[in-house]
Amino acid sequence: MEAFSDGVCSIAATLLVLEIAVHPPGTALELLRDEWPAYLGYAISFLTIGAAWLAHNAISDRLTRADSLLLRINLLLLLVIAFIPFPTKLVVEALHKPDYERVFVTLYGLTLLTIRLLIFALDEYARREHLYSQDEADEDLQTERRQLWPVVAAYVIAILAGLALPRLAVGLYFAVAVFLIVPFRDLRRLLFSRS
Amino acid sequence: MEAFSDGVCSIAATLLVLEIAVHPPGTALELLRDEWPAYLGYAISFLTIGAAWLAHNAISDRLTRADSLLLRINLLLLLVIAFIPFPTKLVVEALHKPDYERVFVTLYGLTLLTIRLLIFALDEYARREHLYSQDEADEDLQTERRQLWPVVAAYVIAILAGLALPRLAVGLYFAVAVFLIVPFRDLRRLLFSRS
Amino acid sequence: MEAFSDGVCSIAATLLVLEIAVHPPGTALELLRDEWPAYLGYAISFLTIGAAWLAHNAISDRLTRADSLLLRINLLLLLVIAFIPFPTKLVVEALHKPDYERVFVTLYGLTLLTIRLLIFALDEYARREHLYSQDEADEDLQTERRQLWPVVAAYVIAILAGLALPRLAVGLYFAVAVFLIVPFRDLRRLLFSRS
Amino acid sequence: MEAFSDGVCSIAATLLVLEIAVHPPGTALELLRDEWPAYLGYAISFLTIGAAWLAHNAISDRLTRADSLLLRINLLLLLVIAFIPFPTKLVVEALHKPDYERVFVTLYGLTLLTIRLLIFALDEYARREHLYSQDEADEDLQTERRQLWPVVAAYVIAILAGLALPRLAVGLYFAVAVFLIVPFRDLRRLLFSRS
Repeated sequence: MEAFSDGVCSIAATLLVLEIAVHPPGTALELLRDEWPAYLGYAISFLTIGAAWLAHNAISDRLTRADSLLLRINLLLLLVIAFIPFPTKLVVEALHKPDYERVFVTLYGLTLLTIRLLIFALDEYARREHLYSQDEADEDLQTERRQLWPVVAAYVIAILAGLALPRLAVGLYFAVAVFLIVPFRDLRRLLFSRS
Repeated sequence: MEAFSDGVCSIAATLLVLEIAVHPPGTALELLRDEWPAYLGYAISFLTIGAAWLAHNAISDRLTRADSLLLRINLLLLLVIAFIPFPTKLVVEALHKPDYERVFVTLYGLTLLTIRLLIFALDEYARREHLYSQDEADEDLQTERRQLWPVVAAYVIAILAGLALPRLAVGLYFAVAVFLIVPFRDLRRLLFSRS
Repeated sequence: MEAFSDGVCSIAATLLVLEIAVHPPGTALELLRDEWPAYLGYAISFLTIGAAWLAHNAISDRLTRADSLLLRINLLLLLVIAFIPFPTKLVVEALHKPDYERVFVTLYGLTLLTIRLLIFALDEYARREHLYSQDEADEDLQTERRQLWPVVAAYVIAILAGLALPRLAVGLYFAVAVFLIVPFRDLRRLLFSRS
Repeated sequence: MEAFSDGVCSIAATLLVLEIAVHPPGTALELLRDEWPAYLGYAISFLTIGAAWLAHNAISDRLTRADSLLLRINLLLLLVIAFIPFPTKLVVEALHKPDYERVFVTLYGLTLLTIRLLIFALDEYARREHLYSQDEADEDLQTERRQLWPVVAAYVIAILAGLALPRLAVGLYFAVAVFLIVPFRDLRRLLFSRS
């Protein structure tokens, strides 16, 4: 389960770069500047996949065994993660063509939300079926669980906001990805232990 | 053997998304709606590769050793799994261009059937050559074996039906993929244990 | 070393499928038939990468440690393996456009030959620097070594023959790939043990 | 952490080949010759990713544990490594279209420099937070550390030189990649132990 999941996550994350390309005419700097939606889409999707992988890792590290239903929830999660390059491509195109913005940004948000909910389902199922080791949940898993509802709420707000202001929604997806990745607690500890 | 197999399966599954693209002109919702054959093809192929990987996993988990012929049957299986993105692309195109439907859907069905038969060959060979551990076959492997002939029969029926009604065949391939992935027995157990 | 090598081999092998595409106009069967060079290129390159991976596996299974020079020879081998999709694409195109056939088939042959020689270098270096475990070389590694010079000779003959008859060379590359993959000795043993 | 990192590195390295393609018209040899920027870009980027992976390996081999901040620095490093195919593509195009050369070569250099600095950050953080095993740093890690500042200096010089002479900078990036990969000390030892 680990190897296949790691494979799908790392491939989906790495394939994202294939969608970045410059579109002449223009000077070199203009070409690079005009691709800002592509960089933003790459960063959001890469970090979101990275965060999904960290959460997946926190879950599978504590599993003592995997039953066949867990493997299948996992497969569904991977199906959605591997799908991310498509809505990412659409959002990047949409930021160039305002007509499509509203619909494509909404699809993107729904994909990100689905990933988070499937991670929750994986964790919930493992807990209810006693697939975890008996020890206390480790810190990483606790952090994941504490983050769940704020993140789901942020996604729902962003999806709704995106119906009126698609670019605001994209900004919120970026903020959530950064929030999921940056370990604020560790940073604080690090800063204090230094000072 | 594990790492290479996991790699090929996860890459073939993740590459499928590259074939999904919208085709203007049209409104954003029309563009998304018109791509239904691409989503369907993605889902069938991803789930079929996922099911092949689950079966592969059930086999290799019980292997005590791998001889060189087993490695080569495995390589042949991977050759066909890695090939899936091509017939998938053809089927997706064919659902837009009815002229090609019959031939491309048949090729797709033959590819899916070949994968299933090669998994059977892998299992059969490992059993005859005593490459498995002596314990009772575990539950997952038993399930795989029980499913073999119904699935092969369903593929043969779908291939034959597809000569007249290609879209029916695609529907059947989807049904088989869902049947292979959804663990009905586990779901029943889960429902009863809850009630 | 294992994970990165397995990764590159499985990705290079799986990317090959992206080069297969039908080229209208024509009936569905004509389109499929006209792609025979693409299937042939896919099969040769996939099997050659598979054989390289089997050889690599036989070597790394017996290593007790890896020094930094071995890692670098390995990296060079991976550089050439990851390069295969390019000459494969050229050969496939060349079989459609006879003008390019001679040069592109020669480049393809040189790539396949280089892979074999780098596998030889990896094995030689590991042996001279005593990186292998002290046990007798296992059967797989012995088979690899016995096959080395016949395979190198076949490649050299095919490259030279290809200067006059490119399609003959492609046939020879296919024959070598099949020879490297099909374990004739095991098949004979299997047939006799059955009879 | 290992599997995901190995995955991203091997995929980013293998995807590079997709950017190599011949551009008719011309004879077969002319087509191949005209693609020299593509080969050069492939070699520099593949070797740079390979060197990053070797450094990453030297670090993670000595880790006794990974805290969540380390995982995130690692994720940032992978984000930049997975990004390499894009600036590589730009440099390859730029060597055909002189107008873009200066800007695209600078972007490429900044990407390579960032990777090296993030590897440094990963090592520094692991050292300060006592995540390494207590043993002496092994030889590979020592070599990595000794190489850091010369390599960073070479990148900075190349980036500055590239503002005037982009092709000189590309030559320097190639030289650094070869320097990072070729283990001069081992070669010397090997030559002396043979003579």
